[in-house]
Amino acid sequence: MTDPLPSWNDVPAKQAIVSFVKQTTTKGNPKFVEPEERIATFDQDGTLWVEQPTYSQVMFTFDQLGVMAAKDPKLKDVEPFKTVLSGDNAAIGKLGVPELLKVVALTHSGTTVEVFQKTAHDWITTAQHPRFKRLYTDLVYQPMLEVMQYIRANGYKTFIVTGGGQDFVRTYSERVYGVSRDHVVGSAGGISFSYDETGKAILIKDPTLLWIDDKTAKPVDIHLMIGRRPVMAFGNADGDQAMLEYTQAGEGARFMLLVHHDDATREYAYGPESKLSPFSDALRIRANKSGWVVISMKNDWKRIFAFD
Amino acid sequence: MTDPLPSWNDVPAKQAIVSFVKQTTTKGNPKFVEPEERIATFDQDGTLWVEQPTYSQVMFTFDQLGVMAAKDPKLKDVEPFKTVLSGDNAAIGKLGVPELLKVVALTHSGTTVEVFQKTAHDWITTAQHPRFKRLYTDLVYQPMLEVMQYIRANGYKTFIVTGGGQDFVRTYSERVYGVSRDHVVGSAGGISFSYDETGKAILIKDPTLLWIDDKTAKPVDIHLMIGRRPVMAFGNADGDQAMLEYTQAGEGARFMLLVHHDDATREYAYGPESKLSPFSDALRIRANKSGWVVISMKNDWKRIFAFD
Repeated sequence: MTDPLPSWNDVPAKQAIVSFVKQTTTKGNPKFVEPEERIATFDQDGTLWVEQPTYSQVMFTFDQLGVMAAKDPKLKDVEPFKTVLSGDNAAIGKLGVPELLKVVALTHSGTTVEVFQKTAHDWITTAQHPRFKRLYTDLVYQPMLEVMQYIRANGYKTFIVTGGGQDFVRTYSERVYGVSRDHVVGSAGGISFSYDETGKAILIKDPTLLWIDDKTAKPVDIHLMIGRRPVMAFGNADGDQAMLEYTQAGEGARFMLLVHHDDATREYAYGPESKLSPFSDALRIRANKSGWVVISMKNDWKRIFAFD
Repeated sequence: MTDPLPSWNDVPAKQAIVSFVKQTTTKGNPKFVEPEERIATFDQDGTLWVEQPTYSQVMFTFDQLGVMAAKDPKLKDVEPFKTVLSGDNAAIGKLGVPELLKVVALTHSGTTVEVFQKTAHDWITTAQHPRFKRLYTDLVYQPMLEVMQYIRANGYKTFIVTGGGQDFVRTYSERVYGVSRDHVVGSAGGISFSYDETGKAILIKDPTLLWIDDKTAKPVDIHLMIGRRPVMAFGNADGDQAMLEYTQAGEGARFMLLVHHDDATREYAYGPESKLSPFSDALRIRANKSGWVVISMKNDWKRIFAFD
């Protein structure tokens, strides 16, 4: 028997995953799940790859603003672009979500969807993480990749359900996670149908926001885009709570898992014990009460990255 | 060699489909399409099943209004419900889209997504078509089912892209078309996340409209839900023009097909030659100019339904 999860230590969480998959895919088992119902949803930032010191898409957004300001220096005089372009991290850290969304709107609109895809692709295949000095896509958690591969081999469809922009994540999801573009559910901006100067049909990215795929929007968008309640759900933050609750509330076997970041040496430590954690103490209490699996990156994962 | 399309006569349209699939799936062929890019989109009403004398979902909507009025007779005094409940087809035919959407909003909201699924399932597995006296799902076009099966066997993903409600179509798409729920893109209403009285996470259908998946919304929703430009697209009406244009405007090999309803004996005849056709003369001219395949149900299809 080959170990399907070689990057995991032999811990209860690993046994729980393997046991759940065996039970739900064995005909006659009381926990058997029909193939068409085998839906698994994964948060991305902090669940599938590093989200510290900030989301990689925020880094992309700020880099793009720099590229735009080089062509249009007037942006340097207009807030909130001025603050972001200043590079003053303390001031940038004080910007609110509406200000950040203005930067996202500017840098994620005004081109065809294909031009945006190329811009995002060029960035993600060259930009480096400030601490690890590697591509962001090298900072995917190997143990979670193994879970995705293992459950797909057992008939589960794996969906990414992320607060990140789906147009951004889709540029690398197939190559990095083996997740096709139509299996990426994320935040989305408006799109306009139009014709170019030669009469060809094109889609243009608008600066409008359709939805932010976080918190209670995650189960809503899962229904809109997938149309089924997940059987397995994986997250790491308060923004994933509603997705795990919705998963658990279905009939029959269900599996919910949270990643606890407690490994400052190999990755980062920012669990419920840290002040500004996206994984609050309330979520920890909810997870315990509901019997969700909470994994310790430090204790449960033999290695974190493929390069470890 | 087994014929993959036995319900088609040996006509140019059939040869075009088979030739396209062979070229796009043969490595080394200049028209070869990478597996992840093999996306095919199908309109539903009039392309995959009968849409006359009216869309089956409209029949469902009116039937549901009757069920609701039996419990709440006051509905009979309020327009536009009063007109629909009168059964006066001439008056009903004069109702505008905003009035019809009020009936849809009322009959498609106020329950959990699961209760709606059960209601739709119970209807679609019992309600009969007024002319054929058969289930609506028996009135699927056998030649198109064969196309879907044939191209799936060659690595294409088949998506339904319909003006119908995706929550409605998803209740039978897997069983009838072999199309999983997440491969159904359709019109959509709002959804609210909530908890029931036992504290379980639920999703409730709202009376708000998110989008009508028709005309230029089809390519937009294809981008939102699928994230790739289709390589093959199938439709039958003006509402599909933008989808076919968007498909054709991509680089490399593309295939666009329209179904022309010209068989009053076996199905219906309502092509460009008829006055209130959803397939206008402008669309016919566009199809000819663009080299789209237009199939004649009368001449190209050996049989129309599986029961023929």
